[in-house]
Amino acid sequence: MNVTNYHAALTNPMIDSLNKGLGSFQQTIPAAEVSALHWNLLREDLSLPAAILSEERMSHNLQWMQQFVSEYGVKLAPHGKTTMAPKLFARQLAGGAWGITLATAQQTRVAYHHGVRRVIMANQLVGKQNKAIISELMNDPSFDFCCLVDSARSVDQLGAFFQARRQSLHVLLELGVDGGRTGVRNDAQLKAVVEAIARWPGHIVLAGIEVYEGVLKEEADIRHFLQYAVTCAQQLAQEGRFAARAAERPVILTGAGSAWYDVVAEEFAKTDIGLPLDVVLRPGCYLTHDVGIYRAAQAQIQTRNPIARKMRTELQPALQLWAYVQSIPESGKAIIALGKRDAAFDAGLPLPVLHFRPGHAAPIATPAHWQVTGMMDQHAYLQIAEGDDIQVGDMLGFDISHPCLTFDKWRQIAVVNARYDVTDVIQTYF
Amino acid sequence: MNVTNYHAALTNPMIDSLNKGLGSFQQTIPAAEVSALHWNLLREDLSLPAAILSEERMSHNLQWMQQFVSEYGVKLAPHGKTTMAPKLFARQLAGGAWGITLATAQQTRVAYHHGVRRVIMANQLVGKQNKAIISELMNDPSFDFCCLVDSARSVDQLGAFFQARRQSLHVLLELGVDGGRTGVRNDAQLKAVVEAIARWPGHIVLAGIEVYEGVLKEEADIRHFLQYAVTCAQQLAQEGRFAARAAERPVILTGAGSAWYDVVAEEFAKTDIGLPLDVVLRPGCYLTHDVGIYRAAQAQIQTRNPIARKMRTELQPALQLWAYVQSIPESGKAIIALGKRDAAFDAGLPLPVLHFRPGHAAPIATPAHWQVTGMMDQHAYLQIAEGDDIQVGDMLGFDISHPCLTFDKWRQIAVVNARYDVTDVIQTYF
Repeated sequence: MNVTNYHAALTNPMIDSLNKGLGSFQQTIPAAEVSALHWNLLREDLSLPAAILSEERMSHNLQWMQQFVSEYGVKLAPHGKTTMAPKLFARQLAGGAWGITLATAQQTRVAYHHGVRRVIMANQLVGKQNKAIISELMNDPSFDFCCLVDSARSVDQLGAFFQARRQSLHVLLELGVDGGRTGVRNDAQLKAVVEAIARWPGHIVLAGIEVYEGVLKEEADIRHFLQYAVTCAQQLAQEGRFAARAAERPVILTGAGSAWYDVVAEEFAKTDIGLPLDVVLRPGCYLTHDVGIYRAAQAQIQTRNPIARKMRTELQPALQLWAYVQSIPESGKAIIALGKRDAAFDAGLPLPVLHFRPGHAAPIATPAHWQVTGMMDQHAYLQIAEGDDIQVGDMLGFDISHPCLTFDKWRQIAVVNARYDVTDVIQTYF
Repeated sequence: MNVTNYHAALTNPMIDSLNKGLGSFQQTIPAAEVSALHWNLLREDLSLPAAILSEERMSHNLQWMQQFVSEYGVKLAPHGKTTMAPKLFARQLAGGAWGITLATAQQTRVAYHHGVRRVIMANQLVGKQNKAIISELMNDPSFDFCCLVDSARSVDQLGAFFQARRQSLHVLLELGVDGGRTGVRNDAQLKAVVEAIARWPGHIVLAGIEVYEGVLKEEADIRHFLQYAVTCAQQLAQEGRFAARAAERPVILTGAGSAWYDVVAEEFAKTDIGLPLDVVLRPGCYLTHDVGIYRAAQAQIQTRNPIARKMRTELQPALQLWAYVQSIPESGKAIIALGKRDAAFDAGLPLPVLHFRPGHAAPIATPAHWQVTGMMDQHAYLQIAEGDDIQVGDMLGFDISHPCLTFDKWRQIAVVNARYDVTDVIQTYF
């Protein structure tokens, strides 16, 4: 395959009948042709278990978040590691996102090859092959990339590498907190990193400041940390540390996972460092939302944030799993053909919400006492009650907690409309 | 692509540079050409994190298990859901396995399309599309397939479906235990299933008896359950319930996950039901083994089983993850670029065992006090001690617990020799 064909194949990828969760077709077809097959979930056209994305709810969530950041006048670089679905990256960018955040060099390559041209890699760039991947992408002058640094040693490794390649790597200084994850912990570390950057003029460029506030649990601590980040940005601007960056592009001040993006928006939105500045938020899970950890976090946001309150609508869970009742071997217990191979289980088990018997008109809500009590690789245990109307062959729809670890169980995910017609298939790259 | 090309592509699949854990190449190449690229893990030719399989250890484990089942005169149908890697299925079959066990219709299709012609699907076959997948494969008369049944309702659903298609589905009656997973719990349920089978002569054929003893925890309970299975098989043989099967092929008596296969071998090996009988074991994790739950289970087997003791060698962990030290932001803590996206975490966290500094001659053993204390999606926390010789950019090799949930994080896995040269790449189909 030549390069032109390869890129054409990437923008209209072939879906493969050997992957799970789809309907019947021969071998491989272009994803764009799926809607012509007229699959419908409730007609049992899909091989279950299957993951489905609600077109309507995703569109709603896309608009919701774009409106939210617009109200604050900040920019959005959704964390792409959540879905690793280039078609969804394209939707996010078309909807107004400034760029895409990613976690690794490989993820960055996937995004680049699908047309993404502005990436924050929210990690240090470590390792020979990973540096080579980024260096190759940087040969494209339209590719706007930056990654994090939190140690002088790492800066010097990067400096030597990119100097040898006569390239210029833009980096964000990561601030961290004691007991947290990555990021400099104190002024001495910060100073060492900034001085290391100064040792590689033209090859390592300080592009801004990054934090991940999600390692903290209390709002007051988070606000304090964010204010410290603002102070650091102002200080570094005064010292002229962003000079190489500012000539070309605004300095970047970025934070925000999916749980505290409203607080980050509030603390960062009005920042003045005396230089052009892009404040960038990086939530990842808003697109599909969930009914577990992120519903809980969003409920807090809806309570505490005036803009979110004003918007009156909320994020909606858009990623669902469907599976068959496999066996009802004893009273009070059904075995469902859905397992750890299909769903996240680290932040709450899947929640049964819809019950559909093939041939019936529509799904109905499940009784509240139906609960998943445990999961094995390919099975879930569902607690039911004696006399409940449930049979082998019935279909159950589950909402989930933690979209990231659900997406990575699926290579192809059907997108459905409100009637459960399959309108598209998205592919993931993990 | 026509069918012939598609099958050729399946037997020599293209690997894709957009997937993680491999070295540098343009776009896609046939997996068979990987060795010519001369990648070496210790030369940093792979983009980490990467999963690697030890060729030497896999070969050892393959031979070990084949020798074990040969000593008992029983057959091996390794559970393919563990790896979902058709190249490894081919190795298992070439090494003497009788067939491959799988969990779902989609997994069965993957195996069939890669040349597997004898499958036990160790689940009931439920759902319109799943039945259609199996029915289509059954059009090949060389495809030997059976699945489980544990309810009369399910048998009647299957009977109607396969009668309409003028096909004959072979089924294993699954026995279960109270508080367990699937399987009939008592004689009344058993009798109802057997009578349901009799309602579909020529379309549903009772092919044998299946158990999954792994839901029990005590050896005495397991032996009791296995003996009950033998009694059931003898009883059903006396009643002539296997008549349709026996005319063509031996009756099947099958059990055994990866933790109690020795006890199943002991209890089932000498079974006489007065008909030709294949006793089939279905362990899945022996091929790569681990240093967690399955090492613990295997240690019990090495202690209690006379054949395993006589063999003097043991299974060896063959699946390892390698990742970079990403950050050492505070005393006593390193952040590793390895997360829940890369490794199982439900049965023990990855265990650091090897430490390699690029440029050095060889990896060295890690100090015992280096321990993973937690994982996020893309990061692990490694506890170290003040003054330990560890740097950003160092490489760490991790052994794992629970191969099933590690394999499903990787689409392509490098196979390495003892010098860490990459000799092949296997692909997974989840």
